[in-house]
Amino acid sequence: MIYADNAATTKMSEAAIRELVAVNENTYGNPSTLYSIGQSAKEVLEKAREKVAAVIGAEPNEIYFTSGGSEADNQAIISAAENGRKSGKMHIVSTAFEHHAVLNTLEKLRKEGFDITLLDVHENGIVIPSEVEDAIRDDTCLVTVMFANNEIGTIQPIGEIGEICRREGVPFHTDAVQAMGHIAIDVNDLKVDMLSASAHKFHGPKGVGFLYARKGTRLTNLIEGGEQERGKRAGTENVPGIAAMAVALEEAAGNMREYADRLTPIRDRIIDGLSRIPHSALNGDAGRRLPGNINYCFEGIEGESLLLLLDDRGIQASSGSACTSGSLDPSHVLLAICRVHDVAHGSLRLSIGEDITEEDADYIVSSVSEVVEYLRSFSPVWRDLMSGKSQFIL
Amino acid sequence: MIYADNAATTKMSEAAIRELVAVNENTYGNPSTLYSIGQSAKEVLEKAREKVAAVIGAEPNEIYFTSGGSEADNQAIISAAENGRKSGKMHIVSTAFEHHAVLNTLEKLRKEGFDITLLDVHENGIVIPSEVEDAIRDDTCLVTVMFANNEIGTIQPIGEIGEICRREGVPFHTDAVQAMGHIAIDVNDLKVDMLSASAHKFHGPKGVGFLYARKGTRLTNLIEGGEQERGKRAGTENVPGIAAMAVALEEAAGNMREYADRLTPIRDRIIDGLSRIPHSALNGDAGRRLPGNINYCFEGIEGESLLLLLDDRGIQASSGSACTSGSLDPSHVLLAICRVHDVAHGSLRLSIGEDITEEDADYIVSSVSEVVEYLRSFSPVWRDLMSGKSQFIL
Repeated sequence: MIYADNAATTKMSEAAIRELVAVNENTYGNPSTLYSIGQSAKEVLEKAREKVAAVIGAEPNEIYFTSGGSEADNQAIISAAENGRKSGKMHIVSTAFEHHAVLNTLEKLRKEGFDITLLDVHENGIVIPSEVEDAIRDDTCLVTVMFANNEIGTIQPIGEIGEICRREGVPFHTDAVQAMGHIAIDVNDLKVDMLSASAHKFHGPKGVGFLYARKGTRLTNLIEGGEQERGKRAGTENVPGIAAMAVALEEAAGNMREYADRLTPIRDRIIDGLSRIPHSALNGDAGRRLPGNINYCFEGIEGESLLLLLDDRGIQASSGSACTSGSLDPSHVLLAICRVHDVAHGSLRLSIGEDITEEDADYIVSSVSEVVEYLRSFSPVWRDLMSGKSQFIL
Repeated sequence: MIYADNAATTKMSEAAIRELVAVNENTYGNPSTLYSIGQSAKEVLEKAREKVAAVIGAEPNEIYFTSGGSEADNQAIISAAENGRKSGKMHIVSTAFEHHAVLNTLEKLRKEGFDITLLDVHENGIVIPSEVEDAIRDDTCLVTVMFANNEIGTIQPIGEIGEICRREGVPFHTDAVQAMGHIAIDVNDLKVDMLSASAHKFHGPKGVGFLYARKGTRLTNLIEGGEQERGKRAGTENVPGIAAMAVALEEAAGNMREYADRLTPIRDRIIDGLSRIPHSALNGDAGRRLPGNINYCFEGIEGESLLLLLDDRGIQASSGSACTSGSLDPSHVLLAICRVHDVAHGSLRLSIGEDITEEDADYIVSSVSEVVEYLRSFSPVWRDLMSGKSQFIL
């Protein structure tokens, strides 16, 4: 089996599983308690906070543990919006291809009276910093731009956007769920004020993530209750999961350069192979993308059939975001980069993992090529294209 | 070591840890994906939903997985409040000794204009159903009463309250975090409309819980994003944690009667032993309490010193809720059952686990007795009491 959907979720690393089990077995106390096993759990928790903070150049008390990336995105955006509301600033700048954890939160705020500007991400799937600058107004309370896109893997000029936001005095949040553990992130170099991450995207456990919030950022609670996480996130801390996340993040950060060096040429080998399929196109910038991301559109086929036939051949991949795969609508990300509906339907996302080989890459290319040809052989859309009844787009 | 703080958190059962590891290793796919390992994860998720539903007599599609009890409490209450707001009903009935996940959410709603009635829980820590009935008004949108109290373990007449709410047409939520897995719960028998639970209180993992919401209940999202949990709770499902919770809950439900039969006499043996300490008192009803809960006040001492000295003797216990143990304020629960500040400070909660023996119980009694005597020997408060300078309350 070739698991090529690491953008949807990753397999936990062995070290992270070991940590998860060890903490559950030996340090199961509630960190809010005074006795020894509770205090040991508190130490594990704070040690994990230090590790996570160190990886992104933050202070430990700027890290808030959450149940995942979606919760962190929600809390970051709601917090900035509540701060904005208090000072009469009710305008937010974001992009058209954010994750739905961001887009749906912005939509909720729009209904509450906020004005939301969603920037174009252009054909290459990259935000232009000067357009962020132009969009910022006197009443802008937040700029939120994702670090790397979850479907097409394009990496945004976060440092340049951070520089602009800092200059303009506007808080800047980035959804770094896809980037964390895969590319280097330093919140100070990048001038990021808030950042969201999710452990299961970097070989940590599911159900755990964190929000980085720069010192001085006023957070609004999504979950009220006990005084955990300095009063900003109630609920008994998931100490085993948090400790396992910290282990996974340290591992990912340590191996980042080596994996990127290994994955990038394999990614490009797959892209090169798929480029030979006629009437197909790579989605998103060829260079400024995550080391493991390949996203293609194939004219005249349905993405779903492609996925099922690839699964039969032992290749597990997606057509888009897992979070919206239940939906029949074409990907909002592909539509944002100007793919029309028909073409956006025939998309394939391969997000390869660190254990992939060149042989796997070649097998993926030959399998996709054969399956696309097979599906086109009985596609009425393809027949119309070939007969000239309709026009090729790609 | 005698771990006697199972109300703060429990140790995961071996079967639950095995399930956690097995799902992480073998079924790590994202359940929203189409290919085989994603669909297997989806099956694990839905199987867990069936198991959890079966334990409480619910339908699987009435179970919403959350990050824990606090999140479930918040979502239940916010949902009922939003439904109420739409129909002009902005009154909520609850009690004075709820968990802070409930109380702080109610306080937030109070600031938004809701009228909150907090019922008296009387000296025995039991809500009187007729007082719930009297408190319900035409504009009541929710009654929320906890199933078993987290500090004093008293079990509320949930079925009688459910009957009243059903008759009055008012949605009824119960925070069953302390009760779930320890006493039998059937949401239909009890006429409960919403219920919150947390896995780590019944030997499941931390960071996982669930909200039961009766079919037809309109839920408000706390976390926006993907379409997980039928669109009501975004974020990649924590499938390994959820599966482990289901295993733990099935185990707990299966062993419930046996454990209750074993724990209740040991609990009463400890209560009997502690009752010989002069100027002390059991908090909460002697009979209608969780099988593992003992909560005592000792006049003239500080609970914190008591805990630390018990820890030295290998007994891990709490003075109150772990969620508020960072606070210097006396327990709001003990104040709700009429303990004055001075007495509420000198409290001890023992929440014993299934593996406790009679020897452990006797060791707890002798240790607590000795430590209380020792602490009183140099307590100025105790000296004033003994000299008649101040009056005994207990």
